[in-house]
Amino acid sequence: MPEDGCSPAASRDFQRARAARPPPHLNLESTTMDMGMIGLGRMGANMAQRLAQGGHRIVGFDPKAEARNAIEANGCASADSLDALVAKLPAPRTIWMMVPAGSITKGTVDELLKRLAAGDTIVDGGNSNYKDSLAQAELCQAKGIYFVDCGTSGGVWGLAEGYSMMIGGETDAVERLRPIFETLAPAKDKGWGHVGVSGAGHYTKMVHNGIEYGLMQAYAEGFSILEHKTDFNLDLHKVAEIWRTGSVVRSWLLDLLSDALAKNPEMAGIAPFVADSGEGRWTVSEAIDLNVPAPVITASLIERLRSRDTESFSSKLLSAMRNEFGGHPITKQ
Amino acid sequence: MPEDGCSPAASRDFQRARAARPPPHLNLESTTMDMGMIGLGRMGANMAQRLAQGGHRIVGFDPKAEARNAIEANGCASADSLDALVAKLPAPRTIWMMVPAGSITKGTVDELLKRLAAGDTIVDGGNSNYKDSLAQAELCQAKGIYFVDCGTSGGVWGLAEGYSMMIGGETDAVERLRPIFETLAPAKDKGWGHVGVSGAGHYTKMVHNGIEYGLMQAYAEGFSILEHKTDFNLDLHKVAEIWRTGSVVRSWLLDLLSDALAKNPEMAGIAPFVADSGEGRWTVSEAIDLNVPAPVITASLIERLRSRDTESFSSKLLSAMRNEFGGHPITKQ
Repeated sequence: MPEDGCSPAASRDFQRARAARPPPHLNLESTTMDMGMIGLGRMGANMAQRLAQGGHRIVGFDPKAEARNAIEANGCASADSLDALVAKLPAPRTIWMMVPAGSITKGTVDELLKRLAAGDTIVDGGNSNYKDSLAQAELCQAKGIYFVDCGTSGGVWGLAEGYSMMIGGETDAVERLRPIFETLAPAKDKGWGHVGVSGAGHYTKMVHNGIEYGLMQAYAEGFSILEHKTDFNLDLHKVAEIWRTGSVVRSWLLDLLSDALAKNPEMAGIAPFVADSGEGRWTVSEAIDLNVPAPVITASLIERLRSRDTESFSSKLLSAMRNEFGGHPITKQ
Repeated sequence: MPEDGCSPAASRDFQRARAARPPPHLNLESTTMDMGMIGLGRMGANMAQRLAQGGHRIVGFDPKAEARNAIEANGCASADSLDALVAKLPAPRTIWMMVPAGSITKGTVDELLKRLAAGDTIVDGGNSNYKDSLAQAELCQAKGIYFVDCGTSGGVWGLAEGYSMMIGGETDAVERLRPIFETLAPAKDKGWGHVGVSGAGHYTKMVHNGIEYGLMQAYAEGFSILEHKTDFNLDLHKVAEIWRTGSVVRSWLLDLLSDALAKNPEMAGIAPFVADSGEGRWTVSEAIDLNVPAPVITASLIERLRSRDTESFSSKLLSAMRNEFGGHPITKQ
C-alpha cells in the first residue's frame, strides 16, 4: 500500500467521482483531501457523496455491505473493516464519524484510538451530547490525536443544498479540515464556522435543535388553530404560501410545511405521535443547569412527550379527582 | 371638482410619483387605481408611498399636518379632513384604513359610513380583532358598502420588500382591488391572497402574529442559553450567521436577529421589557375557545407579561410560602 493510501481500485473510483457532474451550488476546491467516513446512513452517505463530487477522496465504512456498495456507485471508495479503512488513508489521517450518538459513537472512538496515531484527526459529525464530546476530546488528546466536534444541520436536503456546520476543537485541526468544510457547506464562506473549543460545536448544535423544536411547535399550533376555525374553511396550503413571501414568519421550515400541506392538506395517514432524538431534552436540562428560563423550548419538548402519552395517567387522575369533589362524570374506556 | 376627484395640485403630485424611481421588486401595473389612505403612521405612509411609486393615485389623510406633508413629498396627494378625502376620490371609492385597532378603527368606519355611498369599499389593513371586522362588515353591508379586512405583515421592510396580505371579504370587492394588492405585495403573484369571507383576513393575521410570538421566543431562549454558557464564550453573531445558511432554523427573523447581534452583541441599553399589541392574547383566547392546545404560543404571551411583572407578586408569595414551611430565607428588597 503506497503512502497516499489509495489502492488502484480506489483510484478508479475517485476518477469516476471527479468525472461526475457536481450538484448545484457545489464548491469545487483547488485543495482536495483524503478522508474516511464511518457510518453510511442517510446523512453519512450523502455527505460522502457531496465530498466526492467536490473532488475529495473519500473511503467509506459501514457494517452493511449495501451501504458500502451504494457509496461506491457515488464516487467514493469503501472499506469493509475499520482496519481496512485506516490502512487506506494517508497520514495524517482524517476520519469523520456519522453514527448514532451515545454508546455507538463512544465505541467507535475507542476502536479508532487503538488504530490511529498522533497527528490524526477524528471528527464527530453526529448529534452527540457535548459532555460526551468533552470526554472524547480528552481521551484523544492523551494520544496526541485531534478531536473535532461538528454539529451538522441540513437533513436530507444537505446533499443538494449543503450542510450548516458548527465546529468545536483546536484551531490547527479545524483549519487543516477547511477544504472539507468548504465543500460540505452551502457556500465556501457561508453556513459553517469554528465556534470554540472542543464541545462548543455540539453545544451549539444542541441549542439549534432546541430552537427548532420551538419553531416547529409554534407553526404546528398556529395551523391547528386555523384548521379548527371551521367558520372560515381556510385553505391552509394557501395561507402558508401567502406567508412564505414578505411575512414576518417566513422561513425554511414554513417552506417545508407548505409543501407538506400541498401534498396532504388533512395530514391523512399520519399518526399524532412525535418522536425526539435527545437534543431537546439536553437543551431543557442545560437551561435548568444554567438557571435560564426557557418556557417555549421546554413546552415544545413536553408536547412531544404528551403526543406519545396516549393512555395519559395524569388525565385519568384529573378525571377521577373531578369526580371525587364535584361528581363530574368520568368518560369511560 | 371633476368627477375623477383629482385636483390640479394632486395631479402634479401624481406625475412626480410616476417619475420617481421604483424601489426594487416593485410591480409596475398596467392598471392603476385611485385610493384614499387613512392613517399615515409608519405602515400607512410607507404603503401609500409604495402604491404611488407603482403608479396609483393615492390621497392620504392623517390628523397630523407633518404626516400629510411627508406623503406629499413621496408622490401622494393629501386631504386635511375626511370630507376632503372623500371628495377627492372618484366613485366607486376605495378607502384603506391603516389606523390603530379598536375604538379608532371603529370610529373611523362610523365616520366613513356617513360619507360613503353604495358600491364604495372600505379596507381595514390594520391589526383589528376579527370579531370587530365581522361587525364592521355587517354595518357596511347594510349600506351596500364593501368591507375588506386585510391582515398586513411586513413592518418597516414592506416599503422596499413588499407586504404579505391575508384578505377577507366578498370576491367582487377583492378582485376590484387586485391592482392595489399586486403593487403592495412582494411580487404580483406572491405574498397575498383572498383567504375567505369577511373576518377571515384578520383571523389569519391574528394567528400569523401568534406564531410570530412563538418563533421569536424560541430564538430568544436559545440565544440566551448560548449566552449563559460562559465556558464556551460563544460569539452569538457568528452562530446566527452560521445558522442563516443551510440550517433547519434559517428564517427572516433569524436574519434580523443576526443584524441586531452584530450591532449590539450584549443587548446593551435595552430593557428586558417586552410589549404586546393584542394579537397574541386573541390567538390564545381563540385557541381556548376552539379547545386547541397551544402551549408554545400561550407560553410566549405569558413570557411577555412576565417581562413586565418586575414586582412579581407571585414570586413574593412563593418566597413567603417557602419561608413558612421550610424556614428558607427571604431575599429582601
